[in-house]
Amino acid sequence: MTQPWQGRIGIIGAGALGGYYGARLARAGGDVHFLMRRDYDTVKTHGLVVHSIDGDFELHPPVYRRPAALGVCDLVIIGLKAFQNEALVELLEPTTGADTIVLTLQNGLGNEEAIVAALGKIARRREETPDQASLAERIVGGTAFLCSNRTAPGVISHTDHGWIRLAEYGGPATERTHALAAMFRDADVKCEVFDSLAQIRWEKLVWNIPFNGLGVAGGGADTAVVLADRDLKAAAVGLMEEVLAAARADGVEIDPDFIGRMIDATTTMGAYRSSMQVDWEAGRPLEVEALLGEPLRRARADGIATPRLELLYGLVKRHNPAG
Amino acid sequence: MTQPWQGRIGIIGAGALGGYYGARLARAGGDVHFLMRRDYDTVKTHGLVVHSIDGDFELHPPVYRRPAALGVCDLVIIGLKAFQNEALVELLEPTTGADTIVLTLQNGLGNEEAIVAALGKIARRREETPDQASLAERIVGGTAFLCSNRTAPGVISHTDHGWIRLAEYGGPATERTHALAAMFRDADVKCEVFDSLAQIRWEKLVWNIPFNGLGVAGGGADTAVVLADRDLKAAAVGLMEEVLAAARADGVEIDPDFIGRMIDATTTMGAYRSSMQVDWEAGRPLEVEALLGEPLRRARADGIATPRLELLYGLVKRHNPAG
Repeated sequence: MTQPWQGRIGIIGAGALGGYYGARLARAGGDVHFLMRRDYDTVKTHGLVVHSIDGDFELHPPVYRRPAALGVCDLVIIGLKAFQNEALVELLEPTTGADTIVLTLQNGLGNEEAIVAALGKIARRREETPDQASLAERIVGGTAFLCSNRTAPGVISHTDHGWIRLAEYGGPATERTHALAAMFRDADVKCEVFDSLAQIRWEKLVWNIPFNGLGVAGGGADTAVVLADRDLKAAAVGLMEEVLAAARADGVEIDPDFIGRMIDATTTMGAYRSSMQVDWEAGRPLEVEALLGEPLRRARADGIATPRLELLYGLVKRHNPAG
Repeated sequence: MTQPWQGRIGIIGAGALGGYYGARLARAGGDVHFLMRRDYDTVKTHGLVVHSIDGDFELHPPVYRRPAALGVCDLVIIGLKAFQNEALVELLEPTTGADTIVLTLQNGLGNEEAIVAALGKIARRREETPDQASLAERIVGGTAFLCSNRTAPGVISHTDHGWIRLAEYGGPATERTHALAAMFRDADVKCEVFDSLAQIRWEKLVWNIPFNGLGVAGGGADTAVVLADRDLKAAAVGLMEEVLAAARADGVEIDPDFIGRMIDATTTMGAYRSSMQVDWEAGRPLEVEALLGEPLRRARADGIATPRLELLYGLVKRHNPAG
């Protein structure tokens, strides 16, 4: 068995997702440090509280207000919303060195590219001249299947699931990937390793694109609403078919049966609100580019027609408070 | 030249559309009678006021609160919203005889079928046994290109256009169709006669489906917003292509150049809000079935794939306050 990865861990973007996984790792004995803005005072004073279907717990971890205070970590876990990536240079410059692993658990497409660009900029400021391949090798990507919410400052409510799929951005899985997975499993987080990051990203989009997009463009249409309406359900299936075609052109083969399995799995979820619908209802900015825009641009670049995705992206942009 | 049609005219649905055309006909000397509910008291006392780009005017026409008071007309002009068609039997039974022409200027598809059904029901109550063809022959359909609003009780604001296209529901144009057109032209309303009602209905849908649908599903996206966004514009063009395909399967050939001409004409309209967008912003019920649902059902029945229309219809239903 691979030994669990060990080292100094920094959580950047410690919200419902980053906060949850950081708390799990810290509870299992990991050396976890949290960068927090909004919740700094609360967590500093009262700790971090996790209400979880798997049992509630509370921690008093080290928290920092500024990246320079957090300092260099061996592993940085990024749980930022994708539209916060413009802050990556500022966040990663004080917290990463040449050997720091950057693990992004963000949604959608384009995050690894944004991290490569940030790491490249940081390296050039340090008068290093890394090639793209060596920057890519510093990045691990993951897709998180987690139902959680930040219900109050310093309080995370974990309502369902929580498993993670991991893959290297720079190539197939390595000893390191397996060590990271073992670290998560040690912290009671189910974690699988894959050889293709593109595969797990596109597979997650098969669900994310229809249910996040329709949830917002439908004015707050949860999964039960979408599946109960003949036309919206047909649109969801059609969007999934478009994602499969775009993925195939991007070198990722997804079994067509996957669509039926996603629909069946969603049917059993009841009236589930996607993260984008939750953000929209709260008046927060939406991850519209990572979830819809970037997949559409890749499909277009590959000459794949995705008429429903194009329409949905156009509409969701209009519903983005940050748009 | 064909003589203008003459006779007793009843306006049913005397809002921004029916009220406007009724006022034009009355001003030109027509024997026009208005059925009104909301605006009855105001018009009875103060008359009907039209603010028009072609010159303001005011009338004191005969108004009625109940269909039985209006009584049988030689021509009934229907300006109801399509979702009010469930009242057709009640409205047409006291106002139509076997020789009454029913002219519908309503939007979308399915209105003539609803009128045939209503006339058939009325006929059976009268113990008549008309065949479908003879019921159809009583109906004339028109598409109105009119920018008007009811800005206050008894006040209509006419801001642009106003021309009408007419066609018989039961067959090609007849002497009667031309006489009706001459009546409108006599009242300063441009009016053209066509041999195919399906043709003019589908041609109007080429514009109505994208700009009404996107206007609502985009959370209030006027024509300038749609055309300024690459993705929404591409979606609008794609929707138009779907309408052309559905029309073709319904026996209506529309020149593909029509799409470019519609886009160009819309570009010159500036920030125009479609009727459905105006209704949506006012919290009123939407003509979602006539404008989107019925065209989609016809395309499906003909085996034509209209993925964007299906998606848009699913979404607009969700934004319909009456849905």
